[in-house]
Amino acid sequence: MTTTPDPDVRTDTAYAEMDALGVGALWRHLGGLFPSEPPARAIPYHWDYRRLRPYMLHFADSLSIEEAQRRVLMLLNPGMRDTSATVTGLYAGIQIILPGEQAQAHRHSSNAFRYIIEGAGAYTTVSGERVHMSPGDLLLTPGWRWHDHYHEGEGPMMWLDGLDFPLVNSLDTAFFELYSDAAQKASVPDDLSSLQFIHGRLNPSWIGDRGPSSPIGKYPWTETARAFEAIADHATGSEVDGISLEYTNPWNGGPVMPTMACRVQRLVPGFHGVARRHTAATILHVVRGEGMTVVNGEEFHWHEKDVLAVPSWASYRHLNDSRTEDAVLFSYSNEPVVKALGLYREELL
Amino acid sequence: MTTTPDPDVRTDTAYAEMDALGVGALWRHLGGLFPSEPPARAIPYHWDYRRLRPYMLHFADSLSIEEAQRRVLMLLNPGMRDTSATVTGLYAGIQIILPGEQAQAHRHSSNAFRYIIEGAGAYTTVSGERVHMSPGDLLLTPGWRWHDHYHEGEGPMMWLDGLDFPLVNSLDTAFFELYSDAAQKASVPDDLSSLQFIHGRLNPSWIGDRGPSSPIGKYPWTETARAFEAIADHATGSEVDGISLEYTNPWNGGPVMPTMACRVQRLVPGFHGVARRHTAATILHVVRGEGMTVVNGEEFHWHEKDVLAVPSWASYRHLNDSRTEDAVLFSYSNEPVVKALGLYREELL
Amino acid sequence: MTTTPDPDVRTDTAYAEMDALGVGALWRHLGGLFPSEPPARAIPYHWDYRRLRPYMLHFADSLSIEEAQRRVLMLLNPGMRDTSATVTGLYAGIQIILPGEQAQAHRHSSNAFRYIIEGAGAYTTVSGERVHMSPGDLLLTPGWRWHDHYHEGEGPMMWLDGLDFPLVNSLDTAFFELYSDAAQKASVPDDLSSLQFIHGRLNPSWIGDRGPSSPIGKYPWTETARAFEAIADHATGSEVDGISLEYTNPWNGGPVMPTMACRVQRLVPGFHGVARRHTAATILHVVRGEGMTVVNGEEFHWHEKDVLAVPSWASYRHLNDSRTEDAVLFSYSNEPVVKALGLYREELL
Amino acid sequence: MTTTPDPDVRTDTAYAEMDALGVGALWRHLGGLFPSEPPARAIPYHWDYRRLRPYMLHFADSLSIEEAQRRVLMLLNPGMRDTSATVTGLYAGIQIILPGEQAQAHRHSSNAFRYIIEGAGAYTTVSGERVHMSPGDLLLTPGWRWHDHYHEGEGPMMWLDGLDFPLVNSLDTAFFELYSDAAQKASVPDDLSSLQFIHGRLNPSWIGDRGPSSPIGKYPWTETARAFEAIADHATGSEVDGISLEYTNPWNGGPVMPTMACRVQRLVPGFHGVARRHTAATILHVVRGEGMTVVNGEEFHWHEKDVLAVPSWASYRHLNDSRTEDAVLFSYSNEPVVKALGLYREELL
Repeated sequence: MTTTPDPDVRTDTAYAEMDALGVGALWRHLGGLFPSEPPARAIPYHWDYRRLRPYMLHFADSLSIEEAQRRVLMLLNPGMRDTSATVTGLYAGIQIILPGEQAQAHRHSSNAFRYIIEGAGAYTTVSGERVHMSPGDLLLTPGWRWHDHYHEGEGPMMWLDGLDFPLVNSLDTAFFELYSDAAQKASVPDDLSSLQFIHGRLNPSWIGDRGPSSPIGKYPWTETARAFEAIADHATGSEVDGISLEYTNPWNGGPVMPTMACRVQRLVPGFHGVARRHTAATILHVVRGEGMTVVNGEEFHWHEKDVLAVPSWASYRHLNDSRTEDAVLFSYSNEPVVKALGLYREELL
Repeated sequence: MTTTPDPDVRTDTAYAEMDALGVGALWRHLGGLFPSEPPARAIPYHWDYRRLRPYMLHFADSLSIEEAQRRVLMLLNPGMRDTSATVTGLYAGIQIILPGEQAQAHRHSSNAFRYIIEGAGAYTTVSGERVHMSPGDLLLTPGWRWHDHYHEGEGPMMWLDGLDFPLVNSLDTAFFELYSDAAQKASVPDDLSSLQFIHGRLNPSWIGDRGPSSPIGKYPWTETARAFEAIADHATGSEVDGISLEYTNPWNGGPVMPTMACRVQRLVPGFHGVARRHTAATILHVVRGEGMTVVNGEEFHWHEKDVLAVPSWASYRHLNDSRTEDAVLFSYSNEPVVKALGLYREELL
Repeated sequence: MTTTPDPDVRTDTAYAEMDALGVGALWRHLGGLFPSEPPARAIPYHWDYRRLRPYMLHFADSLSIEEAQRRVLMLLNPGMRDTSATVTGLYAGIQIILPGEQAQAHRHSSNAFRYIIEGAGAYTTVSGERVHMSPGDLLLTPGWRWHDHYHEGEGPMMWLDGLDFPLVNSLDTAFFELYSDAAQKASVPDDLSSLQFIHGRLNPSWIGDRGPSSPIGKYPWTETARAFEAIADHATGSEVDGISLEYTNPWNGGPVMPTMACRVQRLVPGFHGVARRHTAATILHVVRGEGMTVVNGEEFHWHEKDVLAVPSWASYRHLNDSRTEDAVLFSYSNEPVVKALGLYREELL
Repeated sequence: MTTTPDPDVRTDTAYAEMDALGVGALWRHLGGLFPSEPPARAIPYHWDYRRLRPYMLHFADSLSIEEAQRRVLMLLNPGMRDTSATVTGLYAGIQIILPGEQAQAHRHSSNAFRYIIEGAGAYTTVSGERVHMSPGDLLLTPGWRWHDHYHEGEGPMMWLDGLDFPLVNSLDTAFFELYSDAAQKASVPDDLSSLQFIHGRLNPSWIGDRGPSSPIGKYPWTETARAFEAIADHATGSEVDGISLEYTNPWNGGPVMPTMACRVQRLVPGFHGVARRHTAATILHVVRGEGMTVVNGEEFHWHEKDVLAVPSWASYRHLNDSRTEDAVLFSYSNEPVVKALGLYREELL
């Protein structure tokens, strides 16, 4: 083949001609494609639960569960609304369900969990197991497992929904299916998986099926409380995160699902954490107490039940200025994703 | 807290008020967020090398390497130009470099490789090792390794650039740095890593540093040719992919880099592959021969050096209707990503 | 070199001459070296605790801890006394320590654990952590960690010692060292590792050092009891082992140490297990109840605190003929060893 | 239960009584069971091939293959003849087969390999694949694969047999079975696995069955020679082992079989290695050249085809005092075993 330029090709028309062929010129995009640091798409953001709650109650009253299918306020990062994400790859929403309501059974390839905020008497049925909810419980719905919710208690029930659908959608790996009925029938004893796995680091030997996600339907708050009480003030903890505990998959000791790490941390009175940044995007939820997180120099004062978005590579530090009260934060992040792909970086500042 | 709706909240203003708080209503987005199957963002697409080549030669002539930094035609999927991607998570470009040209040393957290198409006499310096290029060679530049290119041969040199920056950018994990000089100095013998690793499945025992990526700078075509010749017609191969060989990381037998699997496959004369679809997005490059790939029912007739995009979950099958000539395809995909995250699905059709 | 036999070599003298050169003739040993099935070196054996206990009390009275260093009755399999093993690769002993006694601090490359049988008030100090003992507790001393015992309670304290020294010795990998003092000083709070790891499947995020063994100093019986109570009769369990739970390493979900798997199983009233055999050698200890295990057709009737040896490839089944009482067995085996080396086989019979 | 000693128990009779119950007193064995360092069971030993060869030729002449089944001189360590081992856990033998001879097909759970020393024209059939032998080739027979040998060439054929039966037997995991016929029929093309796997670090994508051992039937000397030639004098190599290359399992980059690591090393003229010791037991075979290995201070001068046993924890160093000739050593060790079990230690001296 010739290596001589064709005189008929002219720069002034070439770009348009190439565009029609699905071709762009890298030299016109280089900076955007290779930023020196991760650009701030997601922004640090704070959702004040006290301001959200009236809307939840309003729509619980005015919008039926049949209309809504899932009655959820999505916490959308103002910097990345196009992807309905809360931070990179992750989503958070607040769901409300009323006594007698049934949320239609379905399944999706996205991994999901629920962290219970308010109420009592509801349950999620996951693969035939009814998992009952109380505040502080972490309930898992790993990808492609049938799940539906039912509320047989009194008063509204609210929880934080955590999903990885921004990631799953961005990878073009999303599937969804409605169940043939409104709800699954219970096929095993209630809360079976928690009963079998949660105590004493003991694994049932008779269970052979070991997928990539934790088999535990619920990590109850009672056990988390027991852990904090046992650890008490004996632990050194982390200078950045205090007494930070990770929920684990009993089959491999790793994160509960391949795309999301879930943690709960106790900040003792007077805790002033060291600042750091890392390439895992993080969502925090205040379980108890109040305090402050400084993200990229901006102060976010949070109270019980609030939600906070900390983007990838944002510097952040936690402070609990109370002299007497603990603060407890639940958090989840896409750390398993960036670690699995060799893209994790962390810096103490 | 009260569970009674606040009468001051009104549906007709609630959506705008919530929007100002970074809140959306899931019931208004549900279908878009949970598609029943991965929606076709990327489209199946075919780049005809004979049509691209004149533009490459034109810009090689009219645009200096100093101006361009990297003189590359980006192969942009018409369905996802916003992300400068060729398929989901992956990028392909055709780079051209002329004798005497030097492409500035830099590094980025994106993983990259080069698959050589035309020319002789150029080399890439990766972490101080000069890696010389010949057509059919696969050269790796795993994330965050310094690399620069120099052409000391004659005639233009063209290669296919494969990168994962659409993924790395979407995860907000992109870093980039320019080297202090235009080029690195050679600090080890030329092609050292290939010489040490490529033969006989033997691993050097004295190398302790084992990152997540292959340490091999170059998988030379001469060895690939030797493999095809040895296998000859003895292998059953795959009914969908023929004699398909994966380039491997000698430390773990897995893909060459954590985000991209690279393969080369031989379609014997008369090969009619079975159709399949999977959730890994794939880019194919024709090394030799001609044939057809049917993607989602659409026929793409390809020739030597062409590039073809096969999106996630698109069904596709390969055919080589020649009676005498092999076709050889090089391909890469994000299969390691979707497998690591538990999101891989595959169906024979 | 010539390939003609040397006429001076004569069969009648060759064997002796070869022997002097460190050479044997395979054709004279073939059957012994390649048995069709694992030959019965270890035999099935039953140690009746009621018969051992008088000797323990006797030597506790007549032999000082200074003389004995460790006052232990070794349970030696009559079939393999040359290796001081209880079954292949594993050892069991019953240790007794009296109030005020101190067992000298030392460490060895063998992995060890203690399963507490009787008494209260003693502790083991492992790497500076005092681990207090109660009946039913499992205490770990992974290889090469300093450990010493002290009894500050009342009455004798007895426990089952489990070690892998027959394996470690057979591999010629045994090391041993005495500590500079009689006892270690406590350097962390008592029972710290249990407090930090045992509840709710939560892992401390601040602990970076993750060796091959569990970091948990003690798996307390209280948690095991809680697990059995929670599981209750909801679980199907195993048809061979009943409600069998494996103690796990929180870092990887695997066995507590690389050479020994520890389990505890509940046989409900009327349980008649299916027979099986496998290539892992097993030692069982009766925590509670009574029952029978049939090993290679021989019936072993066991009572509380007894020990039973089940050799590799022996068929065995458990029966609990009580109409009202559970039987609970603690067991350990070299299953992780044979699995890691690809030598595990199992058959239901 | 009482904690008072029974006055009827008397020390002078207790030991015999306990012995009858399968009980020993630890305080009488403590030193032997917990040595400060691995005791020297195996001794350093050197087999001079020139002295062995006449016996091989003699028995080839005087003992039919039918009588011998396998005509092998076992290299038995004088320190551990009871286990028919060459070093801890490993065995070496020299096998000889004559033209027209057929060694009966069988299989065993022990892993085996052959390293070819002399001759041409024989092949091993492994799982239906005929694998042809030439000097310097490494042939694998992983556990439980049918294998038989046939010699259709001229002159005697000798090779080094390496097996792990001392380990497999000591774990009571040995199984053996004779094939229904004298020989397997070839069911795939000759040398298929080598042809498919040996070149360019390329793995066949169509092979799904991935056990714990390498699928490669033969690592031919031609490829090893190519590797040494390519590496030439460019590599720094190891200060203890020179240019040491490990044969790898293409599925995981690890050792060829779970129990044995195989390596080949080039000692350049004038090489004086650093001394070290480790807890892996090692067997060396001289492929080419001559030199000296100093083991625990004792000098062993070796020549082509000799075999040398280096026990666990023996210090050793290699020297090649030739001014012009390389020395090449093939070696195998139980390093994968001791590493998998957390028992590996190494020291440079």
